[in-house]
Amino acid sequence: MNINDVSFERERPDVYGDAHPKALLRAIQEDGDFLVKLAKQHIVSGDQFDQNTMKQLFRLAAKIESNPKRFNSPLQNKILISAFYEPSTRTRLSFESAWHRLGGDIMSITDRSTTGIAKGECLADVAEMFNNYGDCVVLRDNNENSLFEMMDALRIPIINAGNGIDEHPTQALADMYAIFKWRPELVDPESNEKVKIGIIGVPSKMRTIRSFLKCLSVFPHAVDELVIIHDEASSDDLFDNGQREELEARGLSVRTETELDDVLPELDIVYINAISWEGDTFSTYGDAFHLTEKSPLKEDAIILHPLARGEELSTALDHTSHNWYFSQARGAVFLRMALLTCMVERAERVMDVV
Amino acid sequence: MNINDVSFERERPDVYGDAHPKALLRAIQEDGDFLVKLAKQHIVSGDQFDQNTMKQLFRLAAKIESNPKRFNSPLQNKILISAFYEPSTRTRLSFESAWHRLGGDIMSITDRSTTGIAKGECLADVAEMFNNYGDCVVLRDNNENSLFEMMDALRIPIINAGNGIDEHPTQALADMYAIFKWRPELVDPESNEKVKIGIIGVPSKMRTIRSFLKCLSVFPHAVDELVIIHDEASSDDLFDNGQREELEARGLSVRTETELDDVLPELDIVYINAISWEGDTFSTYGDAFHLTEKSPLKEDAIILHPLARGEELSTALDHTSHNWYFSQARGAVFLRMALLTCMVERAERVMDVV
Amino acid sequence: MNINDVSFERERPDVYGDAHPKALLRAIQEDGDFLVKLAKQHIVSGDQFDQNTMKQLFRLAAKIESNPKRFNSPLQNKILISAFYEPSTRTRLSFESAWHRLGGDIMSITDRSTTGIAKGECLADVAEMFNNYGDCVVLRDNNENSLFEMMDALRIPIINAGNGIDEHPTQALADMYAIFKWRPELVDPESNEKVKIGIIGVPSKMRTIRSFLKCLSVFPHAVDELVIIHDEASSDDLFDNGQREELEARGLSVRTETELDDVLPELDIVYINAISWEGDTFSTYGDAFHLTEKSPLKEDAIILHPLARGEELSTALDHTSHNWYFSQARGAVFLRMALLTCMVERAERVMDVV
Repeated sequence: MNINDVSFERERPDVYGDAHPKALLRAIQEDGDFLVKLAKQHIVSGDQFDQNTMKQLFRLAAKIESNPKRFNSPLQNKILISAFYEPSTRTRLSFESAWHRLGGDIMSITDRSTTGIAKGECLADVAEMFNNYGDCVVLRDNNENSLFEMMDALRIPIINAGNGIDEHPTQALADMYAIFKWRPELVDPESNEKVKIGIIGVPSKMRTIRSFLKCLSVFPHAVDELVIIHDEASSDDLFDNGQREELEARGLSVRTETELDDVLPELDIVYINAISWEGDTFSTYGDAFHLTEKSPLKEDAIILHPLARGEELSTALDHTSHNWYFSQARGAVFLRMALLTCMVERAERVMDVV
Repeated sequence: MNINDVSFERERPDVYGDAHPKALLRAIQEDGDFLVKLAKQHIVSGDQFDQNTMKQLFRLAAKIESNPKRFNSPLQNKILISAFYEPSTRTRLSFESAWHRLGGDIMSITDRSTTGIAKGECLADVAEMFNNYGDCVVLRDNNENSLFEMMDALRIPIINAGNGIDEHPTQALADMYAIFKWRPELVDPESNEKVKIGIIGVPSKMRTIRSFLKCLSVFPHAVDELVIIHDEASSDDLFDNGQREELEARGLSVRTETELDDVLPELDIVYINAISWEGDTFSTYGDAFHLTEKSPLKEDAIILHPLARGEELSTALDHTSHNWYFSQARGAVFLRMALLTCMVERAERVMDVV
Repeated sequence: MNINDVSFERERPDVYGDAHPKALLRAIQEDGDFLVKLAKQHIVSGDQFDQNTMKQLFRLAAKIESNPKRFNSPLQNKILISAFYEPSTRTRLSFESAWHRLGGDIMSITDRSTTGIAKGECLADVAEMFNNYGDCVVLRDNNENSLFEMMDALRIPIINAGNGIDEHPTQALADMYAIFKWRPELVDPESNEKVKIGIIGVPSKMRTIRSFLKCLSVFPHAVDELVIIHDEASSDDLFDNGQREELEARGLSVRTETELDDVLPELDIVYINAISWEGDTFSTYGDAFHLTEKSPLKEDAIILHPLARGEELSTALDHTSHNWYFSQARGAVFLRMALLTCMVERAERVMDVV
């Protein structure tokens, strides 16, 4: 074996370089009150974040991403209960990595069958137990209501890391963070900059898209138009009851299309997802839609994807400048570091001015 | 979504307030020798604790519960091997939370099928491996004998966290700790205070009750009478061979009853459990017995339950002053913190006088 | 219960006493450059280590084993991703214990079905995710190629902890470390000392033996003769294509035998293994060969075994001076501590001279 065969490069140039978080950090002025208030909230839905709170979270995430080594101790002596009753490594490790990087300890539950729930214990009792054992809970469960059953009994914060087809709010915050790192000027309501965003997916059935649209609609000034690209099969139940109307009421201009390649040349951001979680299993939508190196993308368009991906997004795009989905995944760790710090009453340890 | 929907209160009044551990702490004089001696023992059975050792453990637990933040580092650089071959989250997280709060690191095994045991490795070899990898083992296994097979090969302490139907000694210590926090004067053999204790369960088949009775019988001065409440089906094998005689020889007055509501008005403490572990599965006993808000409890009676609970204990009682089962579960973390610190030779780091 | 029944001894005399690592430490002169270079490599194969690199690793392992408490912080703020897609506790805990003892944090994956791979995610995407979440990956997978699929996408080092029937290089390093602790003079090419080594196993099918032979062949000066002991059934495919020739080209004298007890009286080291991993399951070889207290071993011969063991190695030998397999397992933790420290660019924190 040649030693070159096993060598690797720690530093490789990428599209989401160091300059991006710093530019976003400079674009937002600190106002720590919005972060301190997060310590009194569970994180349930994309709906619970106003523009100021999101901006402060993005600023803090950008500050951490700009210099991660400075932030290795704010969660010392804090314990995370990482409860993933639905299979997941990506989201679980993203949260756990965020928590560990901040200096905290973790207890993981990766399987419902190893828990008291298997013995018929009610979720409120599990939550009461969690009160005694940790400082924060991250929950993924394919039952939409588990989150709400636990919330009522909790005296420590819980974070929704995906509840059935309902929501996945921290994914949506990470999506928005990626967009604002790419174009920091969009964060400013006074700016005249706008982008056209296409979403390949089903807003009624995909929790990532449901939460993303809620967060996006808090920044209507930045959105020229929102285009939902779907296949014919999804036409009838593309939106939930009132979902589209709510987005329009908040100021988004919404259009639907069924021909991907006709729309692509217009789009600045292409958000693609093909998986929807339904009970114990998942469905795949939009087999007709694939992004490849031959797709007629605008030269400076970026692609976002909540990952994991399947056939819908070609790996041939990974090494192009359209690839912001890896940046999006990387930034999710920093966004979660920002959020977690606030939720366990440690915001003041990471603020510039206290 | 209204922000009020996701807000929560960190501090809520509860029946097991801050005053309780402090009163117990004051009621017991420190004698660290009993704690230091624990470093040479495995924790196997409720039988191995004398009155003085238990009192010192309860005192240390009360000291930690009174001011947990003072005790965040005694287990630094110590590694726990948390081996739960039988499904459990409550007990596992209770131990792991205790260990993490003391500043230690943890390696978890939550499934026999992921271990070398699946390849036919004998438990003595697993124990030899544990000697090299950690500083303490916590073991739950539905096979009663696994604990003993490991013990012989271990040079680090092992704690029995439930071995089949046999014993669960740290649960029993936590039960006793809850009782003495509630009424600290009971800990003193010179006191004339006594309580009447009812147990709804099957002493021959439930490990929690088996261990609890062993610990309780070390404090016979505090027990006016012990009443075992059982259904007719359990009459013939309510006790193991010699189990009742041993309790009586230690000074407990034991009575059995089959009508719950006739006995309840007499009882100061009602200990209820309905689950028994048998091999790979569990049985539920005493379907006839339910504690509800209509049960004829004495006004100042307390209810204990090792949890997880089922139908036998109504959630309507959670918000009454009878609820000491949540306190019991919470206190179990502090009791385990006290015990674990002693077992890895760190008692002197938490003693008042060294 | 008598308290003596639950007492244990922390310190017991063993054959791998304190003096052994110190003697090896003294036998090798420090040359840190070889350790610093490891930070640029994945650990894939026994073939990638030259004599100097191995010697420096053994020296560092011996230094740590001689005084482990001195080395409790070099991995502070470093995160290990411990990905064991094939059942294992021994190797997983050995790595995790090593990492924790050095002060690092860990995220474990113990089951392929809980990961995104279950949703059809490709391994390169999993690797991209790992880049964001941790500082080092340890991978065990029954698919030989998983390691290579991940490597290409990684910007952090990965360690092969067993890939199908292919290799298990850190086990081989631990094997060599045990041999050199036993006889430090063997490490020196100028020495005239040589030993005769017998291997009971199938070099073509057992990853531990494959890797061990590669590492052993880097020290041909120490090997008088290598005897492969096999049953008739394995005769035809005892070696892979070219495997024996490569060993001979490197200077080993190789012989094969089928009668164990005829060969045993010649051997200084007896390496025995009976398990081979093949896909999702394992096979057992050499049922005919058993080492017992009646085996005609040389008086000062040592036995090595990668463990877990079955019937092939009698526990009656555990308490004899032939037992170096427990030392081998214990030393594996220190060997891995040495290696891991180097791989995450912390070698300079543990070197005598910087």
